[in-house]
This record gives sequence, C-alpha cells and structure tokens, in this order.
Amino acid sequence: MSRFWSPVVQTLTPYVPGEQPQMQRLVKLNTNESPYGPSPKALAAISSQTNEDLRLYPDPEGAALKQAIAKLHGLNPNQVFLGNGSDEVLAHVFAGLLKQSKPVHFPDITYSFYPVYCKLFGIEYKTVPLGTEFETNTIDYFAPNGGIIFPNPNAPTGRSIPRSEIEKLLAKNTDSVVVIDEAYVDYGTESCIPLLRGSNCPENLLVVHTLSKSRALAGLRVGFAVGHPALIEGLERVKNSFNSYPLGRLAQAGAIAAIEDQAHLEATSTKVIKTRSKLIEELKTLGFETLPSTANFIFTRHPKHAGAKIYQALRDRGIIVRHFKSPRIEEFLRITIGTDEQSGELVAALKEILA
Amino acid sequence: MSRFWSPVVQTLTPYVPGEQPQMQRLVKLNTNESPYGPSPKALAAISSQTNEDLRLYPDPEGAALKQAIAKLHGLNPNQVFLGNGSDEVLAHVFAGLLKQSKPVHFPDITYSFYPVYCKLFGIEYKTVPLGTEFETNTIDYFAPNGGIIFPNPNAPTGRSIPRSEIEKLLAKNTDSVVVIDEAYVDYGTESCIPLLRGSNCPENLLVVHTLSKSRALAGLRVGFAVGHPALIEGLERVKNSFNSYPLGRLAQAGAIAAIEDQAHLEATSTKVIKTRSKLIEELKTLGFETLPSTANFIFTRHPKHAGAKIYQALRDRGIIVRHFKSPRIEEFLRITIGTDEQSGELVAALKEILA
Repeated sequence: MSRFWSPVVQTLTPYVPGEQPQMQRLVKLNTNESPYGPSPKALAAISSQTNEDLRLYPDPEGAALKQAIAKLHGLNPNQVFLGNGSDEVLAHVFAGLLKQSKPVHFPDITYSFYPVYCKLFGIEYKTVPLGTEFETNTIDYFAPNGGIIFPNPNAPTGRSIPRSEIEKLLAKNTDSVVVIDEAYVDYGTESCIPLLRGSNCPENLLVVHTLSKSRALAGLRVGFAVGHPALIEGLERVKNSFNSYPLGRLAQAGAIAAIEDQAHLEATSTKVIKTRSKLIEELKTLGFETLPSTANFIFTRHPKHAGAKIYQALRDRGIIVRHFKSPRIEEFLRITIGTDEQSGELVAALKEILA
Repeated sequence: MSRFWSPVVQTLTPYVPGEQPQMQRLVKLNTNESPYGPSPKALAAISSQTNEDLRLYPDPEGAALKQAIAKLHGLNPNQVFLGNGSDEVLAHVFAGLLKQSKPVHFPDITYSFYPVYCKLFGIEYKTVPLGTEFETNTIDYFAPNGGIIFPNPNAPTGRSIPRSEIEKLLAKNTDSVVVIDEAYVDYGTESCIPLLRGSNCPENLLVVHTLSKSRALAGLRVGFAVGHPALIEGLERVKNSFNSYPLGRLAQAGAIAAIEDQAHLEATSTKVIKTRSKLIEELKTLGFETLPSTANFIFTRHPKHAGAKIYQALRDRGIIVRHFKSPRIEEFLRITIGTDEQSGELVAALKEILA
C-alpha cells in the first residue's frame, strides 16, 4: 500500500497465472502449453532476425503478420488485430469494446482474467451460470447486456459448443459485441472465424486467438483478434494510445513462420487429441469423472477423493496440475494434455495415490 | 467509427510513432535508434534460447532480469518494474500512479505520448511551458499537482537538467509522484537512479528507462522503471491485472545480457557523443541553431529556412529526420545521431538544400 497509488489500484485483485516452477524433473501439466515444440520454421525465422537490426523498432502495424493471419483464415488484413499474447488483446477488447453502460456478461466458471480486466477498467459485469453439466447454453445470454464474452471451448472446463449455437446467439444479440475466445480451438472445436469471411461479416463478432497453445509459442507472446474492420479500428485506437510496438521483431518473424506452418499445427494437435482420448479412458478406469473436452486439457474429479488432496499428492511426486479453490469446481483438477509418456507418469502416480 | 466502441474510444487521438519506412538505401535519423548494433552477448543469449522451450511461458515476474537491473544500478530487485518497452511501463505508470484527483503536470513540449495516455485513462493534465530557451525550470512545478512527469533529457529538445535540480523538486513536492523519464540518459545526462539507493530512497520518485536507445534493442521491446518498492508494487498490481507475461523468453534473455554488457553501452554511447559534437559544429557553420543536447538526437532550426521545407528536401534525398507540426517547435528538426558517415551524408545534403 502506498498513498501514491491511483485509487483504482487499491481495489485490484490481480490475476494469478499458473506457476512456472523452477523444480527439476517435473511433469508440468498446469498451464496448457503444448508438449511439442513450435514449428522448426518459426525457430529458423527467429534465428534469421537475431542480428544487428534488433537496434531498429519493429513494424508498429505488424503488416506482414496481419497478412499471414488473414491469408490463413480467408480474411482481409484490416480484420486482424495483434497483441502481446491474447491476454493483452483481451485487455484492449475490454477497454475498447466491452466498457459500456450495461454490464458485460460472461460465465460464472471461465477464464479468471475476465473479472480482473473489469476491475481494472471499471466495467460492470454479470456472471451467467453454466448448466449443471458445466455446459454453455447460449439461451442464457439472451438478455440485455453491454457485451458477451466466453471461451469456446470454455476454460477450465474444456467443453465447447458448435458454431451454429453462436450463430443463434448472434441473431438474437445485435446491439452489443460478442467475443469468442478461441485460445484452445485447435483441438476439436468449431471455430467461428468462417462467419467473418466475405461481405456477411457480422459487425459485432470478434474472435480471439493465441499462439501460446497449439502453435507452441507461449514464450514468444503473440495473440490476435479477428473481426469486422470497424471493431479492429477501435482496438487499434486503444493499442496506439497504449503502446505503439507491442510485438518485437523476433515475435513478428516467429509468428509469421508459425502461422504459415499449418502442417505442424495439425500434426501436433492430432497427437494431443489422441493422448487426450486415451487419458480420459484410463482415468475412467480409476473412477474419475471427466467432462467432455475439445481442448488440450481436461477437467476431472474423483467422487471419493478431494481435488485439493490429489493435487497436493501429485505435486509431491513432481507432477504439477491446476486446482482452483472456487465454488462449484473445487473438487476438479485441470490437467494439461502432455505427451503419452507424461500421461503414463500421471496415471501411474494417480494409481499410487488412490490405492 | 462503430457503435460497438466503448465511449472513450471515440475521444482518442492515438500517438503517431516515427515512421519505419520500407525504402531501400535510407539514412534513417528519425526514431532515435542506435546506429550501432546491440551487444553481441545479447544476440548470443537470444540464440541460446531460440529452441523448443519457446513452447513454455516465460517467467511472469522476470526475476532474473530484475536481478540484473538491480545489480547494475545498486538497487534491490523489488525496486524494479519491467514492461514491453518503456511505452508500456509509462502506460502502467499513468494508470497506476498518475491518475489522481489533481491534474498531472508535464512540459508543453515533451514526449507526445503523455497526453495520449491521459486521454485513454481519463486523467486530467496541465502543461507547464518550458522556458524561452526550451529549458526545464523545476520551480515551475512548485504547485499543487496529482503527479509530475518529464523526460531528462527532455524530448524532442535534448536539453537536460542536473540531478540536484530534481532533488530540489523532490524536497518541495512530497505529496505526489515525480516520474523522471530517462529514455535518453546515457548520452551525458545525470541519472536520478543514485537517489533511489539505500534507506533514503524517496517514496515518490520513479525513474523510467528503456533498452531501445543506448542498448540498441528497440526491436526487442524492453523497458523498466525503478523506484520505491511500494510504487513498484502498485505498478505490479496494474500489470498483473492487464497482462501477466509482457516479456517473452527471448526478450528476457537478451535484456539480461545487454544489461550486463555495460562496456558495450559505454563504447557506443561515447561514439554517439563524439559524432553529436562534430555534427553540432558542422551545422553551426551552415547557420543552424541547435539546442544544447545530452541525448542521442539534436533539436535544430535554421533562421532562414522553414523546418518543414528542409524536412521534405532531406526526405527527397533519402534522409529521414523528424519534424513536429506543433506550436513553438514547427521550425525545428529532431535529428537522431547516426554514424559519422551518416552525419557526413546529412551535412552534404543540407549544404545542397541551403545553397
């Protein structure tokens, strides 16, 4: 505490990211990173830019990266907004689009950064309870609001809804922005990006992506949003009133090469999806109840063993998963899908713990 | 314009950074980058981290980088705040420390991002005119305020004041934060960082630095602030409510190595200072009037030739400098100090233009 803080600072409860422990010999299944490395082409592109030109500012607009993203997704570059990880993108989205006279609506169980942004920017919000099976029911959002945001698949549950459900929501919700946070979309969820193509692009749909998960570049810090050019222009105004150069030269170079290497994404995502299916089966035989997942993590509980206890017992064995001390979900563990080998270690440890 | 923007977005007038032109064969003296490359040790450190580990999130706290900065400056790591370039650091400073019931005070002629932050965050501000010779007179800040910020040396003028003047200001100004933006400090300006050492560290002094200028890493995006631990804690709360991971793994690795290579900074800064003296002399023989500079740029005008015209004539010859269409300074050019060779090209072009 300091009397020199701005008044808002005293009200903030910052987001707590999953830890990055310094322990050796760790099975790290807590922050939904890819167990496979990034595209070798991304590493090569970064290396080719690691030179004296780092003395120069990067392109503040990130034009080449916008072009690459637009090309991949069949959009125009003016439909793309870039940021220093999707967290920064989301921050600008809250400040630039979701701060309205009515409250923004998001699920009661979701990415815990959303209410943190609201506090920072002085945005009113209303949480919409997920269904009894932790499913998102879009009908629950058919109400006056200053904006809607939810992840698809949702986090930390892993559950997703089909694009057609979001189309229904858009048809009903025409007076505020609908933000679909697709951080984990590449593991079996239908993306909403096709809705943005061509002249029928809705004026009020924004889709947020990150390169930290399926592109395996969490260490590089690149995220983006795609949507109607007018929404993007609003975000650019906020960004250019905050930081002209959020993406350095290496981040831009690496991201372009990663975006262009769709084959790498598909190969690694396919492996993750396979490991996920196998893990869910194995957990079932141990008595775990796992929510259906189209993400690179699962959300699971054991009817006879407390989540906090399993979390700690795994940790004692060098296996780090995530546990949230929040209402409705305190019995659950969120487990990142690692390699088959890591899954094997996890299952072996759980057998020991439950024995 | 879009009806989906937050109300504040319509009021924003974003900062316009110096352009990064794509022209070939350019003498680029417009954005105060170092004409020399970064420390080779920084490039080596980046290369050593360009590997599969980029799939992992970086340390959200940047502990090793904070340690390196603290060591260099004789501070504790809890006195260091990190950001994605000093622009992001400044943004958090405005939001977290300078948003108060009284207006923040800064010079009428200064870094043009300051009023942009104020608009974004809804901060009232008052500009304090520089003296007739564009000098900063700290006595002009002896008035009730919600915070004070100015660069030292000032930008775009290049003029600096001694640390003792800032000590006088601190003695008078005990009820609000004083932020000294030392982006260009390494070219002959007295830093205020020594005031922060030990138990006499003022509660209300914050000093902001960047690695984009003297460390020649504008392309990497790293900046920091140092001050009393309580001020830093306030900034951390804002940062952790905005983006947990502003600095990627490569940025952290490169910045640590650059901070540790003080010899490289000193060698390159010395060259820039020499070139600056020589350039000021040569411009004098052409009739230019140049403000005294302790920065890696100069601010100069010609009594008989309009600034806008010289700017355009230089541009036509592939030499890019910066010209601001602002009251009091529209006859001036801000010229980055390049290599001796670039200076030679500049002077030759000016001779041609004035002939």
